[in-house]
Amino acid sequence: MKDFTFFNPTRIEFGKDKEENIGQYISEYGLKKVLIVYGSERIKKNGLFEKVAKSLSDKGISYEELGGVVSNPVLSKVYEGVELAKSTKADAVLAVGGGSVLDSSKAIAAGAVYEGDVWDFFSFKAVPNEALKIFDIMTLAATGSEMNNLAVVTKEETKEKFSLRGSATFPTVSVINPKLQASVTNEYLAYSASDIFAHSLDLYLTATYLPEYIAGYVENILKTVVRTTETLLNDSEDYEARAEFAWAATQALNFTTFCGVENNRYDTHFLEHTLSAEYNIAHGAGLSILMPAWMKWQKNLLPERFERFARKMFDVEGAGSGIEALKQWYSKIGAPVTLKEGNIPEEDIPMLVEKLSGLAKMMGADGLYTADMINTVFQNAK
Amino acid sequence: MKDFTFFNPTRIEFGKDKEENIGQYISEYGLKKVLIVYGSERIKKNGLFEKVAKSLSDKGISYEELGGVVSNPVLSKVYEGVELAKSTKADAVLAVGGGSVLDSSKAIAAGAVYEGDVWDFFSFKAVPNEALKIFDIMTLAATGSEMNNLAVVTKEETKEKFSLRGSATFPTVSVINPKLQASVTNEYLAYSASDIFAHSLDLYLTATYLPEYIAGYVENILKTVVRTTETLLNDSEDYEARAEFAWAATQALNFTTFCGVENNRYDTHFLEHTLSAEYNIAHGAGLSILMPAWMKWQKNLLPERFERFARKMFDVEGAGSGIEALKQWYSKIGAPVTLKEGNIPEEDIPMLVEKLSGLAKMMGADGLYTADMINTVFQNAK
Repeated sequence: MKDFTFFNPTRIEFGKDKEENIGQYISEYGLKKVLIVYGSERIKKNGLFEKVAKSLSDKGISYEELGGVVSNPVLSKVYEGVELAKSTKADAVLAVGGGSVLDSSKAIAAGAVYEGDVWDFFSFKAVPNEALKIFDIMTLAATGSEMNNLAVVTKEETKEKFSLRGSATFPTVSVINPKLQASVTNEYLAYSASDIFAHSLDLYLTATYLPEYIAGYVENILKTVVRTTETLLNDSEDYEARAEFAWAATQALNFTTFCGVENNRYDTHFLEHTLSAEYNIAHGAGLSILMPAWMKWQKNLLPERFERFARKMFDVEGAGSGIEALKQWYSKIGAPVTLKEGNIPEEDIPMLVEKLSGLAKMMGADGLYTADMINTVFQNAK
Repeated sequence: MKDFTFFNPTRIEFGKDKEENIGQYISEYGLKKVLIVYGSERIKKNGLFEKVAKSLSDKGISYEELGGVVSNPVLSKVYEGVELAKSTKADAVLAVGGGSVLDSSKAIAAGAVYEGDVWDFFSFKAVPNEALKIFDIMTLAATGSEMNNLAVVTKEETKEKFSLRGSATFPTVSVINPKLQASVTNEYLAYSASDIFAHSLDLYLTATYLPEYIAGYVENILKTVVRTTETLLNDSEDYEARAEFAWAATQALNFTTFCGVENNRYDTHFLEHTLSAEYNIAHGAGLSILMPAWMKWQKNLLPERFERFARKMFDVEGAGSGIEALKQWYSKIGAPVTLKEGNIPEEDIPMLVEKLSGLAKMMGADGLYTADMINTVFQNAK
């Protein structure tokens, strides 16, 4: 294993009805004034907001609210939240929703204690090592945001989809009640599965050194996703499958998979963020389109890893067969696997290549993400 | 998955020469005065103590020292440490050694800020939710103490081997440098493997509900232990195997295996603690003696789990074959599997049954740990 540091202080409260204790959890940290951040008005219609509000009130915690966070969350909403948190002197942010809501909340929490522009954290001009305390109640499993310090936000004008990461942006307590995640459509379930796969495979299929322990660990996550996704597509009310799916999502990006690996990259995430920023398609859909296409490009760099993937995950021989099996599995669960299926015009490829090449250059990653590499992946996705 | 809370704030610094940064790690928390706790004088002879002392001095951290912690660590040494920490106004405890040294250090750290008797934490009269900050440099992988808040100590007069657990007894930073663990004898490596197996199997073979994800997770730990132990017995200098062995040990008892399981028990640990307290044999040796014997008793309660264990771990069919395969593996690596091999007189069985029955009664666990159950296990261990 290569040298590493592991640190993850997030407390997880997992299980049925745990959201009803959110007031208790927040009060344990002596906090009194919360900004509740959420997406659509659905949580008001289904009673979740009311439950949360009651739990807070019961513990003498007051709150303000900010709704309207969208998928592929945008910077303007973060600015709105920062202003509101500052003006109401909130001492904590409570995200009620999925990854977009939580990512926005992390940015708001960091921005609320920062004098400068919150976008500084995304453009690497500052690191969010101070923030209001962050809490969340997850209504969708996919991003793993509930147990990491990452947040991805898009700046509308420039369509830059960037991320922040700092020591203060780990949630203090994350509530994962699988029952709250049961209303997701089959379509979004498939996108979520694709997102978890990408978190796992970006690492598993790029690390130039992958300890055997970590390989087995990641395969166990992936097998859990395959098994539970298939169960849930047949029966969305299966609690055990929903719970394991949620926990696998959390494990896939809580940094446990990083331990001791060398040179892991996040290629499909890098490529996809521009796709969802340009076309506002679901992140998981962009990933299922790009993953097999990227794998065809990557497979010659780590042939043995790809052969192992084929064998362990789909019980087939050869790197190409493994890629094909994954593509078929994506199709089976209803995730798109071509640009066409994602309604992305193939004639846009040159524009995408240009955008991504520029981005790669800005990040100093143009040695790896060459125009040729990017073009190859998009051509593979036709 | 059943409802659970997961929280583990320990920061891990894993890799080569990381102990040379210990002064840096401690200074990051603003601490100035450390009590170094260790076992034998070996760390003075091999230069480790000097390295640590230099790293502290370089950061302006002063230290006192307390050597002489023994395996199956004793309460009298903890008392000594508590007095020393109090009189020298230490603000942190730094364990340099294995699980016994770290467990003693946790007790010292808690006792140093407590007015009463530190044994109160072990006899459930108080909970260590305040303590000096705890750091460690692990020279032996086995107990998992580096990433949990447990500590096991024996009270000499009564031979009670009890444990404490509180929110303040997680190490703040644990240093795991696999190279420092390479000097362990093959004998102790086998005991360590047995200890990790027991942490895993006590859970895996008792939980009345074990999520499939967790089952696969635990099997991955066990397979790592089997593979790396065999490698290390042939080549004690194999760094990769040493590193994965160390990381597997940490994962086996950092509470990740507990997530979502129901009714897991620690039967062999309960039974073994009296054995090592009575005869002062290595904890891992006591466990390898008792594990197959206990499994024969337990197997009828969860037959399918035992069949799975046999299949997944040793590729054999049937609960009995799995137990036999494990016993043979213990013998192969040099861990004892009978009382005789552990130099424990068989004629002591009635005395052990009486002691353990009394202990079970005191803990209110005599419904489970009946005299009949305890006797059966020890008879199986003949």
